[in-house]
Amino acid sequence: MPDSLSTTEPTQILAVNDHRYAYRRFGRGPRRPLLLLQHFTGTLDNWDPAVTEPLAREREVILFDNAGVGRSSGKVPTTVAGMARHALAFLDGLGVTTCDVLGFSLGGMVALQVAQDRPSIFRRMILAGTAPRGGEDIMHLEKPALSRHFADPKLQGYAILTKLFFAPTESSQAAAQAFVARLMQSAQRREDRDPPAGPEVAAAQMAAFREWEQFQGERFADLRGIRPPTLVVNGVHDEMIPVSNSYRLAEHLPNAVLLVYPDSGHGSLFQFHESFTRQAAAFLSSESPFAPY
Amino acid sequence: MPDSLSTTEPTQILAVNDHRYAYRRFGRGPRRPLLLLQHFTGTLDNWDPAVTEPLAREREVILFDNAGVGRSSGKVPTTVAGMARHALAFLDGLGVTTCDVLGFSLGGMVALQVAQDRPSIFRRMILAGTAPRGGEDIMHLEKPALSRHFADPKLQGYAILTKLFFAPTESSQAAAQAFVARLMQSAQRREDRDPPAGPEVAAAQMAAFREWEQFQGERFADLRGIRPPTLVVNGVHDEMIPVSNSYRLAEHLPNAVLLVYPDSGHGSLFQFHESFTRQAAAFLSSESPFAPY
Repeated sequence: MPDSLSTTEPTQILAVNDHRYAYRRFGRGPRRPLLLLQHFTGTLDNWDPAVTEPLAREREVILFDNAGVGRSSGKVPTTVAGMARHALAFLDGLGVTTCDVLGFSLGGMVALQVAQDRPSIFRRMILAGTAPRGGEDIMHLEKPALSRHFADPKLQGYAILTKLFFAPTESSQAAAQAFVARLMQSAQRREDRDPPAGPEVAAAQMAAFREWEQFQGERFADLRGIRPPTLVVNGVHDEMIPVSNSYRLAEHLPNAVLLVYPDSGHGSLFQFHESFTRQAAAFLSSESPFAPY
Repeated sequence: MPDSLSTTEPTQILAVNDHRYAYRRFGRGPRRPLLLLQHFTGTLDNWDPAVTEPLAREREVILFDNAGVGRSSGKVPTTVAGMARHALAFLDGLGVTTCDVLGFSLGGMVALQVAQDRPSIFRRMILAGTAPRGGEDIMHLEKPALSRHFADPKLQGYAILTKLFFAPTESSQAAAQAFVARLMQSAQRREDRDPPAGPEVAAAQMAAFREWEQFQGERFADLRGIRPPTLVVNGVHDEMIPVSNSYRLAEHLPNAVLLVYPDSGHGSLFQFHESFTRQAAAFLSSESPFAPY
């Protein structure tokens, strides 16, 4: 893969109040900016260029390290609500008053919380491999289907993602190898890289998952007030955040299209990056008040 | 709507063995023909031109009355398997050895059965508002959510479809009125119309639904052998064949994308006909061995 904006654009630091947020912005075009919110332990360097580059052709894409992740200062909040406050502080500091959002996994939960806290901020939302508050079986890394991968000494570095983000079929594992190769290629960027997330980041984010599973009152009722047209995306064999959570999002959000990919897991957007970016671009480009595109 | 192919193309009769099948074919283009398989009690005159016309721009579309429906001879089979045999006899008689299929509701079940009986026949499948064998809560017209509409004297003719095929929201009901207006416009075709289906057709098709709910051995295991790339479509508030059946299709078919529309019911493809025909055309035009498009 040739040098490209997502891998060459310098990391910038935005100071807001007492915080410093690391981010990268690249791409241009007539559309609203697209904020990307990252998964568990992911940094700026974990975004797949096969997803970010095509999306950046028609709009500015903004990658962002939440507090305590990568080179952003502070401690990682132990609640999604805390992460949502940082995301809003970052957007306010940047002067972005309205944008679209792509939230993957933990990032999707942050997107949902931000949309509740400030309904005017997102015009269109893409929620990939994520769950509503009160969702089920969210990131239980201790269950055997997942813990066996963490116990496997052959799965160092990005290699574990071939198991966590993909299905065990031959075709999905081939896509997994291509995904890791793209991340490794990006990793040839030897300078200006984020430090990988350590155990403290992981522990705080896991606490946030546990808190997100709790709910009060009528389950999923909070989704009814989230009005932006939304595209919910998942792989049908997601072991980290099961697809049933995406079903619940589509059933309770008032204006959400659900797109489920076969033969894939948590990282279906990376496995089917050509389809995903085509669908995402079509969805984001629609001016309809309705989500279908 | 001006005169158009779907409403002006004459009905043809194909004689195969002792049977006569009524059908219409229209449209042209570089793609494989698309066979359309119809819903409970639907005839050739029940297809929405807002769905059939755009699809006919790149391919020939073939509408077909199964045995005992409309002007096709014989008795309506009381099993989906019987309907599948007639569909295959029709395609054989027409000399179509391979095509794509759009099966809506009952038609989707027939498509699934045909794909099992002759794996070579369908290259790509679209299954809208339907259910696998062993699915749940299939067309229980006796349940209060549906029976109240049949008991409503204000819902004569096509009007009942505004309740059966759409959600009760203002936006879905507006789409329902537009759908009925399109069918009424088509009904200005005063000659060459199918007779509406009577109680005998309904009774036989209801028997087929009851038989389709039964399963032997491992539930949904039969879906694993259905290999063509498939697009499963449903409205999230389908009361006739709940969306959970579409979830099961996507989970057990090996190569199926699931697309679920918000704010809509059984007839989501009619409510969101612009989106549906755009998505369907993109899916059908893909040459990938994988369903994502």
